[in-house]
Amino acid sequence: MSGRLMVIGLGPGDDRYLTQEAADALQEAEALYGYGPYLEQVPRRDGQARHPSDNREEGARAEAALRHAAGGAKVAIVSGGDPGVFAMAASVLEAIDTGPEAWRTLDVAIMPGITAMLAVAARAGAPLGHDFCAISLSDNLKPWELIERRLNAAASAGFVIALYNPVSRARPWQLAKAVGILAGHLPGATPVVLGRAVGRSDESVTITTLAAAGDIAADMATLVIVGSRETRLVARPGQRALVYTPRAVESVSA
Amino acid sequence: MSGRLMVIGLGPGDDRYLTQEAADALQEAEALYGYGPYLEQVPRRDGQARHPSDNREEGARAEAALRHAAGGAKVAIVSGGDPGVFAMAASVLEAIDTGPEAWRTLDVAIMPGITAMLAVAARAGAPLGHDFCAISLSDNLKPWELIERRLNAAASAGFVIALYNPVSRARPWQLAKAVGILAGHLPGATPVVLGRAVGRSDESVTITTLAAAGDIAADMATLVIVGSRETRLVARPGQRALVYTPRAVESVSA
Repeated sequence: MSGRLMVIGLGPGDDRYLTQEAADALQEAEALYGYGPYLEQVPRRDGQARHPSDNREEGARAEAALRHAAGGAKVAIVSGGDPGVFAMAASVLEAIDTGPEAWRTLDVAIMPGITAMLAVAARAGAPLGHDFCAISLSDNLKPWELIERRLNAAASAGFVIALYNPVSRARPWQLAKAVGILAGHLPGATPVVLGRAVGRSDESVTITTLAAAGDIAADMATLVIVGSRETRLVARPGQRALVYTPRAVESVSA
Repeated sequence: MSGRLMVIGLGPGDDRYLTQEAADALQEAEALYGYGPYLEQVPRRDGQARHPSDNREEGARAEAALRHAAGGAKVAIVSGGDPGVFAMAASVLEAIDTGPEAWRTLDVAIMPGITAMLAVAARAGAPLGHDFCAISLSDNLKPWELIERRLNAAASAGFVIALYNPVSRARPWQLAKAVGILAGHLPGATPVVLGRAVGRSDESVTITTLAAAGDIAADMATLVIVGSRETRLVARPGQRALVYTPRAVESVSA
């Protein structure tokens, strides 16, 4: 009997961003694994076992779910946002890559979700309308020196930059440091969007500038988008400004 | 009476990637605008007007929908994938930015969708598991020289690279040229994923290498993901290999 492992993206926040494919996969699963708060977003169902685990236990969670699936069950790991973006899908594949040969025979399916960058961008307007990149500011998994190199490369080449994991409890300085590096390439007036808990009832979206962004409170649930030289604001009477990056760039100096 | 303009991401392919929010917005709209093939994905509904237009008419489509909404209607523009990624949302905001003052008073809502990069990545494994960027290879809207600069910057800084619009009828050479530039930075064995029409019945996903990618047929419906030095293959008996980029990077030389 061959098992099935699904890695399901829930999108950010409540169920408004859930896709039809992900909803169907949640129905199919006999057991759910995931970080506790993500599991809590999924309605309980009789006969569907739940295995919550802590945020820092991605490797152990992936292995537990793979062992379970290898016994012949239909098992799902749920992930906030998209499981392929700084999330569980890579952890699962790394576990298969380094684990028992039998895990390679499992039926593995990954269901994409709306990643935080897309949800925050939509709330703010269209800041990702032109070439962009996504960088995690967490130096748990890579040297800070590499993060700095990527920030410099991205800003000098004119990418809009989405910053995941902008700060953590252990490292509250990352975002301000990154903003300082980007300010070496971009004008202080460059639009910056901070989106927190987008899709949840306590959602907040702040539009600010690169000059002010280092002083804005951010936490692990915040996603930051730093514009390029092309990114513009559309002021609106009585409503928050919209932010967009035009699709066209005329000159190569951008 | 103040109108409402919604820009709705359908996700790629059929309705499996539609989010609950997007489905609700499609119900709410009194009129739909969009590129003909995207409109055809939306089930017809009595009393909901449809205004298809051609692929190259983004600016005119945005203005027509805004004029309609300014008359007090609930109008939606539908977009394949995510409307904020090389798609309609930036065109709409640019039209508001440069259009009549009254358009700034409209209620504008953008509903994110699964962009092709996330769907192709999910089908292949988790190639976007680490820092990544998205570049459109179309030089309709920017100089080719700028595209080259961004390819060089992204590859030398170790980003995984998603290429949108890899070729067009008028410019069939872009992908091979881009692959040649990336080959100056990355080993020939670097994994490359080509996903075509993902989410549709004629979907195809090809896993190849950077050395071979320039010779693979691609078209406007293809999304290409070029790995980094860290990106790995997981071979599987009787199944297509999985591709992933580990979340952790040990050394700064990556």
